[in-house]
Amino acid sequence: MSQTKLILSVNAGSSSIKLSVYSASHCATPVSLVKSSVSGLTSPPATFSYSNNANKGHKVEDQESGDVTDQSSALELFLRHLGQDESLKEHGTGEIELVVHRVVHGGLFREAAVLSEETIKEIEDLTDLAPLHNAAALALVKLATQQLPKAINIAYFDTTFHTRSIPPHVYTYPLDPEMVQRKKIRKYGFHGISYLFVLKEAAEFLQKPPEVTSLISLHLGSGASAVAIKNGKSIDTTMGLTPLEGLPGATRSGSIDPSLVFHYTSEGSSLARSSTKELHISIAEEILNKRAGWYSMVGTTDFGKVVKGMNGGDEKMKLAFDLFVDRIVGYVGNYFVKLGGDVDALTFSGGIGEKSEELRKAVVDKVACLGFKLDTPASAKIGGVVTRLGPKVLVIKTDEEYEMALECAQDKRFWE
Amino acid sequence: MSQTKLILSVNAGSSSIKLSVYSASHCATPVSLVKSSVSGLTSPPATFSYSNNANKGHKVEDQESGDVTDQSSALELFLRHLGQDESLKEHGTGEIELVVHRVVHGGLFREAAVLSEETIKEIEDLTDLAPLHNAAALALVKLATQQLPKAINIAYFDTTFHTRSIPPHVYTYPLDPEMVQRKKIRKYGFHGISYLFVLKEAAEFLQKPPEVTSLISLHLGSGASAVAIKNGKSIDTTMGLTPLEGLPGATRSGSIDPSLVFHYTSEGSSLARSSTKELHISIAEEILNKRAGWYSMVGTTDFGKVVKGMNGGDEKMKLAFDLFVDRIVGYVGNYFVKLGGDVDALTFSGGIGEKSEELRKAVVDKVACLGFKLDTPASAKIGGVVTRLGPKVLVIKTDEEYEMALECAQDKRFWE
Repeated sequence: MSQTKLILSVNAGSSSIKLSVYSASHCATPVSLVKSSVSGLTSPPATFSYSNNANKGHKVEDQESGDVTDQSSALELFLRHLGQDESLKEHGTGEIELVVHRVVHGGLFREAAVLSEETIKEIEDLTDLAPLHNAAALALVKLATQQLPKAINIAYFDTTFHTRSIPPHVYTYPLDPEMVQRKKIRKYGFHGISYLFVLKEAAEFLQKPPEVTSLISLHLGSGASAVAIKNGKSIDTTMGLTPLEGLPGATRSGSIDPSLVFHYTSEGSSLARSSTKELHISIAEEILNKRAGWYSMVGTTDFGKVVKGMNGGDEKMKLAFDLFVDRIVGYVGNYFVKLGGDVDALTFSGGIGEKSEELRKAVVDKVACLGFKLDTPASAKIGGVVTRLGPKVLVIKTDEEYEMALECAQDKRFWE
Repeated sequence: MSQTKLILSVNAGSSSIKLSVYSASHCATPVSLVKSSVSGLTSPPATFSYSNNANKGHKVEDQESGDVTDQSSALELFLRHLGQDESLKEHGTGEIELVVHRVVHGGLFREAAVLSEETIKEIEDLTDLAPLHNAAALALVKLATQQLPKAINIAYFDTTFHTRSIPPHVYTYPLDPEMVQRKKIRKYGFHGISYLFVLKEAAEFLQKPPEVTSLISLHLGSGASAVAIKNGKSIDTTMGLTPLEGLPGATRSGSIDPSLVFHYTSEGSSLARSSTKELHISIAEEILNKRAGWYSMVGTTDFGKVVKGMNGGDEKMKLAFDLFVDRIVGYVGNYFVKLGGDVDALTFSGGIGEKSEELRKAVVDKVACLGFKLDTPASAKIGGVVTRLGPKVLVIKTDEEYEMALECAQDKRFWE
């Protein structure tokens, strides 16, 4: 029988971090032991949560943690709690042996990368392309290496699910090929770890092997994207060179006229104040990534408030809602064609996709002409991982931390 | 009976100008008298053509004209020939009384504008948004005013067909509403004169009133766009604030990651050398408008050569072709959804749409899942204005000069 190891999944967002511990052996399903999170990093005080079903005495819920100011101090707080959680000693060595990190931009990495000086350098070179995320992930890699010196650190990328299979005529931008090659400019695509989880869960629910499952999947959160999955492989996705392209988000513009920003500001190419010596962010990129989206239109990043405002008759909130729906349904039509009409299901995931009944109803109603419909009452409860809302419509509660642990358990590199 | 007037249609492109003279009375169908063109303005020597069926002695075909170096000298040459064409004296006063000009960017003009100091100033203010076109059109307006002092000059805009009907949640970009309002940033859409012609011809062919005709129309030339027309009205189109957004073109990138250009060059916001005191063009806009598209990929703006190269086994040409088809079929799927699946026809127009059998076949094959198909042999001749290629597929030879003359004949402002 294969040995059991503890896997720590680290999933850092721009204002939060999710941390989960699993017990796993090679090719077995990881068993969740600890779930923890720190949120509100950009609107202090941050709050900390920790739960372990095997050690209920050690439960922490939304504890204000004034000394936690960034992703690194959040990880330190978590590791202190983990060290005091005696129940983990029942599993394997009782020490974390594998740390899996979600890294947003993986460039042309085609698989998960064991983190070393060399691979860290490669990931650092990509930071300009995902400034909100890669730098935070790398800071956590460094800290984990120091605090868990015996563990292997592994990066799972949001890009690999796409870069493995999207064909050249889709990932190529129509620009000078020599420049494009030199500057590594192409469509990469993101949310790939989440899409891989969604694919496996949808396939299981539909009782088909993932290799013959075709989906249009929507990952709708403060960052939002869509993907066309044909026979288990990504063939197109809305995000591009960076996560900016495609759908709008809480603070992102999504796709707009590429010359728009030059009419919006004449200083687009200048460096934003948030730039550092290592990290170059232009004013244009800062505007389009952080000062656009529905936040710029109605002053909140919380899509629930947009829906509530709309339902209360607020015209601006309704405009923001309708705009988001319009862009989403356009991509559903686009990807229906890319899949030749052969779609097993339209799936909704991400904070908004999982929670907003109004958004799901608005989208499905508008794509009824493609054969999608809801046949459960709008008030039906979303429970478990997969909820069926209609013959070809599913809500899937995504779990990137679990997906990374599962991939890690299946990768023989880490079990020899 | 209403009086008869001569209408001169002026349609200036970036490297050519098309000039047609019609005889018309109020609400009657204009009768074409003279067709003329000057092409090759950006690759001298320019060539001049002139034909008048009532005066066959006055035919000029592809005459090299070394002294013609810009749109203005082209118009002057044309007017000299027109002055010598005695046959026009049989119509009305024998003088041009109405000059209709195609102007690409009309901002928020909701209808054709009689050109005066005031309206010219308004159009000049929009030149930054369509630098390749508006300036040339205005130079011709000035020249026509001098040379034909008795004529009324009227601007027909490529934008009005869209700005009249595209709803706010489609034309709004998710950005700070105050800035957007101040800088007039919204989706305008282009090729509207052509789309109006296509709509009327398609409706007549389908024996439906235009007001209940719904189309997905593709205008595919060196500038390319698509439109969703619902019951005779534009509800979405691919071009945006400027003609750059949406489909790629001969030298345009079309929609790309809005942050891409900042990774392509660090000088994007600087002024391009082609800028003048009146006309500000950033380096980024010059790259994306003039040094992108299939020209940047394979070194030719001629799509016919792209197809020929592809058929001869050239992989780069095939990539450029496949990329164009990919972006087109995505929008067909998108607009099928926007129209709720209620589409009377998919139409092809523009140089490539009218000429490239390979492009049409590739597009229609990929949207077969939406119910479109070709049922005529690929070699069937494209003749007349409308050619049916399948149950819901039409090729329509567009004619912007005629459409402007027709609109002018129907506008009671010019016949009282």
